Amino acid sequence: MALGRHSTAWDISLWARRADAAEEAARVLPHCAVSTNLSEVVESCDLAVLCTSPHAIATAGPELKKLLPASAIVTDAGSVKAKIVAALEPVLGGRFVGAHPMAGSEQSGIQAAREDLFDGAVCLLTPTASTDPSALEAVRALWSAAGCVLREMGASEHDRAIARISHLPHATAASLVHAAVGANPSLAELGGGGYRDSTRIAGGPESMWTEIFLDNRDELLAGITDLQTALETLKLALQNGHRNALEAFLYDARRLRSQKPSTE
Amino acid sequence: MALGRHSTAWDISLWARRADAAEEAARVLPHCAVSTNLSEVVESCDLAVLCTSPHAIATAGPELKKLLPASAIVTDAGSVKAKIVAALEPVLGGRFVGAHPMAGSEQSGIQAAREDLFDGAVCLLTPTASTDPSALEAVRALWSAAGCVLREMGASEHDRAIARISHLPHATAASLVHAAVGANPSLAELGGGGYRDSTRIAGGPESMWTEIFLDNRDELLAGITDLQTALETLKLALQNGHRNALEAFLYDARRLRSQKPSTE
Repeated sequence: MALGRHSTAWDISLWARRADAAEEAARVLPHCAVSTNLSEVVESCDLAVLCTSPHAIATAGPELKKLLPASAIVTDAGSVKAKIVAALEPVLGGRFVGAHPMAGSEQSGIQAAREDLFDGAVCLLTPTASTDPSALEAVRALWSAAGCVLREMGASEHDRAIARISHLPHATAASLVHAAVGANPSLAELGGGGYRDSTRIAGGPESMWTEIFLDNRDELLAGITDLQTALETLKLALQNGHRNALEAFLYDARRLRSQKPSTE
Repeated sequence: MALGRHSTAWDISLWARRADAAEEAARVLPHCAVSTNLSEVVESCDLAVLCTSPHAIATAGPELKKLLPASAIVTDAGSVKAKIVAALEPVLGGRFVGAHPMAGSEQSGIQAAREDLFDGAVCLLTPTASTDPSALEAVRALWSAAGCVLREMGASEHDRAIARISHLPHATAASLVHAAVGANPSLAELGGGGYRDSTRIAGGPESMWTEIFLDNRDELLAGITDLQTALETLKLALQNGHRNALEAFLYDARRLRSQKPSTE
């Protein structure tokens, strides 16, 4: 949808596992060829974009190697990278370039698609020393055309950063919902914009997030530990009535927060 | 601004402490009389709405009693209620009705005013056994006319509920900012909509929130303790790789969260 806006240079074929998902995709994306037959979709492909779950992406190497043209470049949209790069690079070689577009919402499925979803969003690319320069160039062009701003970093550095800026916020939002309304669900009705926005991502699909959390377990655990430390700092200042310490804690958060995300 | 939309039945005078704030308010609200002279603003007032900080509201009783007509009804917009009701009811009597409109943003000042700010937002009223029925009726009419949906509860019940649905989300957002980007502020640039929304309220004014946290200290501490418990539950499931426990935790959060706030 994003690629189809600006030019007709992209000739797009789409694979979906379920027939009903394929039908829905064909309705929403009339300019794309859609099929549930993977071989048919990828047999003459120049550049494949893997958008399934991280586990499905990481285990897709052998089948893709068999079905794709030997010259085809491969990228993905998985939100963990170390595991995916470690699994796909040995099978596909330097033509695979890991990517993670930092866009999306708590919704899923083709009905949540928006052509401006990637506009201004950071897309993290994780090339390695083995990456083909021409593959990297093609993958850069793809995500740029979708509307993303590009950054490059190592796969492990990616997973460490994303634990803090994406997985920890999700874990926090879910925990906050439990603490805020777990004992009294009717309180949710009283929530204003603060509760609504700070818990929005807790509406995301639990099966996907369970997998993401387990894939990035150690980094997320380190982030949760730092959150526990921050809460303990706040709690002590509050218990002791330390007005200056409380205000400094909130000031520092406001100042750090004013380093605005790129899409704002 | 909200009252001025629908009718001309409201004759509104506005007091501001600083001359520049009064000038700005007069520009934004041309139909209101604006002054920095409190006596001039309230001397012929039927219904006064106190919108300063909770501390300033709680200590305003004696001066207001001197300046207001004896028949004038008083309400407020403070986000803590037990302290305010306990301070004002003995001085002003049954003509005071505590209120807390659950609306606002991380912004402050007259330049952040929006005429639709209260539309559909819950306004909690905290009348007591001593409240004059006619005062309650007038205060109900006021907040309804501003666009609010009304709920009534005791002041202590209010503070307990609001600790969970408003003060805890703020404490959580500030702590999350520290844990997410405190060690590496440049990570904020990578944040997508999840980080942005879940930390938005941490941009609020620290002096106001420090006061609110201290005013509602015990209830907020109980909320933080429950959040720590929830994080510990999540952490243990993650450490032990308990996929089912993780998925149940996230599912419960999603289900609780789908009890949507009234303004959504």
